[in-house]
Amino acid sequence: MPGENSNSAVSLEQREVEAFLDDPSNNQHVKQSWRPYLEASLGFRNHWYPAVFSHDLNRDEPMPVKLLGEGMILRRVDGQVLAIEDRCAHRRVPFSAKVECYTEDTITCWYHGFTYNFRDGKLVAVLTEPGCALIGKMGIKTYPVQEIQGMIFVFIGDGAPPRLGEDVPPGFLDEDLATEGIRRTVKSNWRLGAENGFDTTHIYIHRNSKFMNTTDALLPLGLVPTNKQSMEIVKGPGPKGVVDKLASNYVPVFASTIDNVTVAAKMKPNGQAVAYSVSIWLPGVLRVEGFPSPEITQFEWYVPISEKTHMYWQVLGKKINHAEDAAAFRSEVKSYWEDVALRGFNDDDVWAREALEDAYTEGDGWTKERLFKPDMCLVEWRKLASAYHRGIQKLT
Amino acid sequence: MPGENSNSAVSLEQREVEAFLDDPSNNQHVKQSWRPYLEASLGFRNHWYPAVFSHDLNRDEPMPVKLLGEGMILRRVDGQVLAIEDRCAHRRVPFSAKVECYTEDTITCWYHGFTYNFRDGKLVAVLTEPGCALIGKMGIKTYPVQEIQGMIFVFIGDGAPPRLGEDVPPGFLDEDLATEGIRRTVKSNWRLGAENGFDTTHIYIHRNSKFMNTTDALLPLGLVPTNKQSMEIVKGPGPKGVVDKLASNYVPVFASTIDNVTVAAKMKPNGQAVAYSVSIWLPGVLRVEGFPSPEITQFEWYVPISEKTHMYWQVLGKKINHAEDAAAFRSEVKSYWEDVALRGFNDDDVWAREALEDAYTEGDGWTKERLFKPDMCLVEWRKLASAYHRGIQKLT
Amino acid sequence: MPGENSNSAVSLEQREVEAFLDDPSNNQHVKQSWRPYLEASLGFRNHWYPAVFSHDLNRDEPMPVKLLGEGMILRRVDGQVLAIEDRCAHRRVPFSAKVECYTEDTITCWYHGFTYNFRDGKLVAVLTEPGCALIGKMGIKTYPVQEIQGMIFVFIGDGAPPRLGEDVPPGFLDEDLATEGIRRTVKSNWRLGAENGFDTTHIYIHRNSKFMNTTDALLPLGLVPTNKQSMEIVKGPGPKGVVDKLASNYVPVFASTIDNVTVAAKMKPNGQAVAYSVSIWLPGVLRVEGFPSPEITQFEWYVPISEKTHMYWQVLGKKINHAEDAAAFRSEVKSYWEDVALRGFNDDDVWAREALEDAYTEGDGWTKERLFKPDMCLVEWRKLASAYHRGIQKLT
Repeated sequence: MPGENSNSAVSLEQREVEAFLDDPSNNQHVKQSWRPYLEASLGFRNHWYPAVFSHDLNRDEPMPVKLLGEGMILRRVDGQVLAIEDRCAHRRVPFSAKVECYTEDTITCWYHGFTYNFRDGKLVAVLTEPGCALIGKMGIKTYPVQEIQGMIFVFIGDGAPPRLGEDVPPGFLDEDLATEGIRRTVKSNWRLGAENGFDTTHIYIHRNSKFMNTTDALLPLGLVPTNKQSMEIVKGPGPKGVVDKLASNYVPVFASTIDNVTVAAKMKPNGQAVAYSVSIWLPGVLRVEGFPSPEITQFEWYVPISEKTHMYWQVLGKKINHAEDAAAFRSEVKSYWEDVALRGFNDDDVWAREALEDAYTEGDGWTKERLFKPDMCLVEWRKLASAYHRGIQKLT
Repeated sequence: MPGENSNSAVSLEQREVEAFLDDPSNNQHVKQSWRPYLEASLGFRNHWYPAVFSHDLNRDEPMPVKLLGEGMILRRVDGQVLAIEDRCAHRRVPFSAKVECYTEDTITCWYHGFTYNFRDGKLVAVLTEPGCALIGKMGIKTYPVQEIQGMIFVFIGDGAPPRLGEDVPPGFLDEDLATEGIRRTVKSNWRLGAENGFDTTHIYIHRNSKFMNTTDALLPLGLVPTNKQSMEIVKGPGPKGVVDKLASNYVPVFASTIDNVTVAAKMKPNGQAVAYSVSIWLPGVLRVEGFPSPEITQFEWYVPISEKTHMYWQVLGKKINHAEDAAAFRSEVKSYWEDVALRGFNDDDVWAREALEDAYTEGDGWTKERLFKPDMCLVEWRKLASAYHRGIQKLT
Repeated sequence: MPGENSNSAVSLEQREVEAFLDDPSNNQHVKQSWRPYLEASLGFRNHWYPAVFSHDLNRDEPMPVKLLGEGMILRRVDGQVLAIEDRCAHRRVPFSAKVECYTEDTITCWYHGFTYNFRDGKLVAVLTEPGCALIGKMGIKTYPVQEIQGMIFVFIGDGAPPRLGEDVPPGFLDEDLATEGIRRTVKSNWRLGAENGFDTTHIYIHRNSKFMNTTDALLPLGLVPTNKQSMEIVKGPGPKGVVDKLASNYVPVFASTIDNVTVAAKMKPNGQAVAYSVSIWLPGVLRVEGFPSPEITQFEWYVPISEKTHMYWQVLGKKINHAEDAAAFRSEVKSYWEDVALRGFNDDDVWAREALEDAYTEGDGWTKERLFKPDMCLVEWRKLASAYHRGIQKLT
């Protein structure tokens, strides 16, 4: 149980952080404790990230993608997905400008016919100079790939990768979990996506969403932490993350006043609480248990594309017993939840991240922000990410 | 009489400047005397600027504006206009992305419900955490506002503002002055607007304007200064400015030759001279007396928005005796002068400023320009602005 | 015979370069030998460049052009073409924003009427101040111009220019050469144009072009050099260039294999070899003898406009005996070769240069490229350009 040890170790720091959050003078010293996180504008290196859905990658159609600023070409060969750097070593042009593949497991540069093997990146032929001295002696980067839960994960890093299970939330790889989802590009830095998702008081922005008007879910204006131990810091082995138990450690706020004017959340006769636990995991994955309905878990990835864009993954998972239940669940997601929740709720989040972008990426949000007590969850996430990431991604 | 003292004090320098202007070697040393002006790409801080017309601000519709790079929200409360910084202290997002006002004199951030009072900027409520420790202890900036002559002025600066009368041309606040005008965004630095307006020889660009073809105004190709004392330097108390008496101290040029080819101004049988006096005032306001017709005065503001754009204000003023005369004058401006002069003459100026922009903002115009004698007026304005401004605006 | 001396002098270096090209470790030291070339992102100063075709310049219509980042106005006066800087010395605005010419050999600035002579750049009049002290004492830059072969060449540099013949390929100025061509803007640095054109193995990109499907030309996948002396380095007197004798010193590759899969060039029953010799000359001009057909020579200029764009000139030349043969040839180019070759072949080159642009101008292509043996031609061109250019152009 990593949680137990870590909680006692972190509690002292939490008091310090809490003092910081309640103090209007906004001590910059405390912010230094998450400096590595501030440097990770392109994400953390040496982690696994989802690249595309399995169904995005049809046989014999190589597909270019960009993750953490790195371009690559994915291709399914004999059922297995391979990934190779999208750049010829010769003149450094992208293969993706005009993809040429003459054999099943090679890619040929459109410019001078330099041909690389998809499995190891080795230069295997040069069509314009068959006897080229460089053949077999040089190559380009290939990427470890793993396909599971209908998603294709790529390891962006150097050397041998850790198990995929180290980089996804607990439970995500369970065999009895059925999944279905969507992905889309959002015009904000990936950290603003991760923070907005984990932020327990950002729910204020959702109060007029389609989801609130369609379902019987009850959503407060905010959630106020009651307990210094409300968060569990999970330091491994296994995935590293921060778990926030919304149901047991927070008091919901259903009404507030401004100069005696009341602002209230939408109340419903038989409304039910949703999202009993929210957690975030390295390298930047959210898990919301009991959302959008009690038996479903929502997983979200915020995968850096560039410093100013990320790929937003929204995947719903449900424990099932039989294969036909899985199909029924996927159908339910496609026909109902995609409209009502994945768009009808999370579109607000996409909007908020893009509205945050200028203040943080163009402006000085990281240094001038003035956090408040409920932002404790962000602070813990930043500290965890700063302590346990495996590298800071830099443009090469 | 500030003019008398200042004229004698400045006359020596004027001789030095005149030598500079007549010398093709273009001594860079003289240019150093207006270096503060060169740094003011975002304008001068601690001055009053017009933000919007009174009629732009309807009750209960808060309005975002940007002046000197600072975003703010204006709102009319109980008839009085208030202005508050357009940025939440918490995550530094702009309120204007989605304006929320639950009470008459507060603004609430769309993200987490941080609520600020419009009068003093204090944080008065946090809808997502009613007991937030920061309430009452922190706030955001509010701006002094004054409404007069149908315009809403905002003080961009720190501490207590001076009287508005210090920052507008003499006569503009007179009770018997009726005013009417327009404003528009121009894609050039504000200083190119101010300089083009005060430049006595730029009138060359207007010779084929609609104004010239519609009215009986007589406009020379240029105006040549005859007298070293042609300009009056007004150093206060009251507004600081440079006054150029066109009618008495200049000789108009109605024809010039190039290799014996004559280029002439448009001559008219009963043409009348216009614009007997042009003056410019800190923080960047032009007054043209006797323009577009003898009994009218044109006022122009060039308010910095960003380093590359400014809000161009064109306001015509006329002394009136009765309220109904004011209404008649405003109607005349709207039905005639707006088309014939404010657009039919000044559109040339807008074009010229935008054509100047690259050379000065992208290029090295400020250091490589080669001024000539009639640019004495620009030199005096730059020196005055450098000496009497109250601060250089910098992006925060 | 400059070729003889230079070949012996260069052969040693060629061995060194060849070792570099065959070595996957890619010694950065060798790259230092062409560092001046790497700095010439705006081209080489003090050389002649084509500006426009003769037919582009109609009498009395001054025409603005930009070469090597410098704006100028061309005008035909009494049959002779003159060129003057496109920037008034006063406020540094471009004349081209609104061209005003009152006499045949002057240009007047639209802003204050500063008037310059087209022949020597002198300030000859100021319309707004006829007695201006600066008249006759200052001026702006004019450019040496030469018109030949239906093209207007401008010398971008300082001081007296060399003969035009120093800066064009041998034979281009021959009186019995008839020429016809087109020009267009390409979105890449000029060097990527020059290198793509001189590159003997880039022909791989043309294998499916309209030219290949329309003519009986035979085009291999690549050309492999057989001989260290394959290139002739021409160091003057006269133009400096590198000559690559394709017909005699290369072995064509008509088929290659990847893991036993054959990739082949398009074979034709009576196909004929084309392009028996390719050469490149300072400041960046290609000559392809025997292309697009045996009796024609193609000349190409890659004239820098900005760091990211160049003007691509494609001119076909043919030796003729009678004036009517010249007209017939020009007609043949317009009606046939322009479609089949200048576009039907070279459009691939334009595409390739633009696909190269990001890797070199935004990325680190110049330092990280990994050249192979056939790139010997590029290395020799870079070395020659680095050694014999007359200056590196910088933005002023």
